[in-house]
Amino acid sequence: MIKPLFWENNRLYIVDQTRLPQEYRRIEIHDHLQMADAIKRLAIRGAPAIGIAAAFGLVMGLKASVHLSVDQFFSELAKISSILQNTRPTAVNLAWSLQRMRQLACSQKHQTVPQIWERLLSEAQSIHREDIEMCVRIGQYGQSIVPEKATILTHCNTGGLATGGLGTALGVIITAHQTGKKINVYVDETRPLLQGARLTAWELTEEKVPFTLISDNMAAYVMTTKNVDLVIVGADRIAANGDTANKIGTFGLAVSARYHGIPFYIAAPSSTIDPATPTGQAIVIEERDGQEVRSLAGRQVAPENCPAISPAFDVTPAELIQGIITENGIFKNPYHFL
Amino acid sequence: MIKPLFWENNRLYIVDQTRLPQEYRRIEIHDHLQMADAIKRLAIRGAPAIGIAAAFGLVMGLKASVHLSVDQFFSELAKISSILQNTRPTAVNLAWSLQRMRQLACSQKHQTVPQIWERLLSEAQSIHREDIEMCVRIGQYGQSIVPEKATILTHCNTGGLATGGLGTALGVIITAHQTGKKINVYVDETRPLLQGARLTAWELTEEKVPFTLISDNMAAYVMTTKNVDLVIVGADRIAANGDTANKIGTFGLAVSARYHGIPFYIAAPSSTIDPATPTGQAIVIEERDGQEVRSLAGRQVAPENCPAISPAFDVTPAELIQGIITENGIFKNPYHFL
Repeated sequence: MIKPLFWENNRLYIVDQTRLPQEYRRIEIHDHLQMADAIKRLAIRGAPAIGIAAAFGLVMGLKASVHLSVDQFFSELAKISSILQNTRPTAVNLAWSLQRMRQLACSQKHQTVPQIWERLLSEAQSIHREDIEMCVRIGQYGQSIVPEKATILTHCNTGGLATGGLGTALGVIITAHQTGKKINVYVDETRPLLQGARLTAWELTEEKVPFTLISDNMAAYVMTTKNVDLVIVGADRIAANGDTANKIGTFGLAVSARYHGIPFYIAAPSSTIDPATPTGQAIVIEERDGQEVRSLAGRQVAPENCPAISPAFDVTPAELIQGIITENGIFKNPYHFL
Repeated sequence: MIKPLFWENNRLYIVDQTRLPQEYRRIEIHDHLQMADAIKRLAIRGAPAIGIAAAFGLVMGLKASVHLSVDQFFSELAKISSILQNTRPTAVNLAWSLQRMRQLACSQKHQTVPQIWERLLSEAQSIHREDIEMCVRIGQYGQSIVPEKATILTHCNTGGLATGGLGTALGVIITAHQTGKKINVYVDETRPLLQGARLTAWELTEEKVPFTLISDNMAAYVMTTKNVDLVIVGADRIAANGDTANKIGTFGLAVSARYHGIPFYIAAPSSTIDPATPTGQAIVIEERDGQEVRSLAGRQVAPENCPAISPAFDVTPAELIQGIITENGIFKNPYHFL
């Protein structure tokens, strides 16, 4: 199975996704600073995967503190947690995972520091394992909305590389293919960082699922001309009312799907749902460097230093979302997450 | 002024737009085969500009035939015209311009061949000159829909490089700026060939019009967050009912504009209107090589040879188009072009 992160022989490795598909390179991660850097530069990305990465990053960062007093250890834990938390603002799984780790640590305060550290490692492994199971269940619940013969359009990468397991939206698609449904996928390349072209196209090739790569602006044309049955994408944060932040371009895709009467679905673990965020308006959208748009794969494509923006996400209003596929079943509009 | 094509001292030059903005290189065009190749590989592109280019290409191709008999000359004319016609199927200006050249030639059959050739050259120059004037008038008529302070979103390149003059959609925008309106432009990069990032960003920099470059999939986000007042784009063919073929991505943009209640306008010379095409369904969409999507600026971005498509255009239904700005005024929905 395609994986973004490996815990092997007491060592942590991630796959450097910025180098795919040209090169499959594993990097050993020794501490939280290295992990924070990997998350920021998208060497590891995808909302569920960065939740897992942050948990392991915390464990690795605390490795050097196992000789400290309990108080000193907890102060380090707070500091490291905050560094990891501040890498990316939009995906809630990052905050969710770090909070779960902190809560676990607090519940273990009566133990020795090395014992607490061991429990944290085991919690990170649980988060990872649970994510694999959630992907399986999302993939299974998703089957009720995928016809026996289906043309599906997807955006960004929501597969094995974005999660601990088979993926969320891509997990639904791959599960459909593996259970014998006749699946055909249109893959948005997903500018500016091309997670669709680089990662999803690579994963679908590996999984032998038939697909066609398109540039993002071809989606409406494909909906008109290629009999698209449904659109499934992932999510980085789902507000209490169902408004969903996901990779930039998702909103336009949902608008086009609505215009064509094509059902538009989100697939995400329930850890992506943030009841503390009432609506999409409260979601902070990460603004990345405009250079991402001026360039591609290191090559300048626009006039040097011309003004450019690079919002990493947009918010799709709940009214455009037919359903949200989670490991607990499919939620339908209207959404009221508590 | 920015120009795609120059007739100077009896020699024809085009600017190789595939090399912009990194390099401004003029190429001398000696015959129709060289021009056909330039049109196919988009060294010269933009519906009005390829109309002009085809007319001059015909003239250059016939240069070697001025010693032939009238019959032989007309047989060459038919052959060369067909070669130029077959370079790109969607923009009607190409067919329009070649037909005008053939009609002119037929009307001059009583002249000597060198005289007919001179008349053809002068007709190509007229097509070029008239296009400059049309751009001026489109720019002026367009002012009625541009507020004194306006944020405008545009797609692809419709400026000096795409026409003989100031441009169509970009002509309206630049005219607004030059007449003192406070204009702010969002420029879609326009994948796969990045005419927005490479050409429009370059032209707006040259013309000192404030702009921000975005990837195409950011348009819906920009409409929600940046108070976009209107969208103006060009056209490659307008059917009798107003359905409009334009650069791939236009359709999705029009759908998003409608969702946001933002007026969506086409700007094009009336030679782009093709009353012989009843609706958009009859417009042939050029399918280019999927390699355009798998790669960028010569760099591979997706798994090698993975399936990909590259439709060069899409069709925006007339119902989404608020108005069509031509050199004869602004046509409003419903459209009935005769």
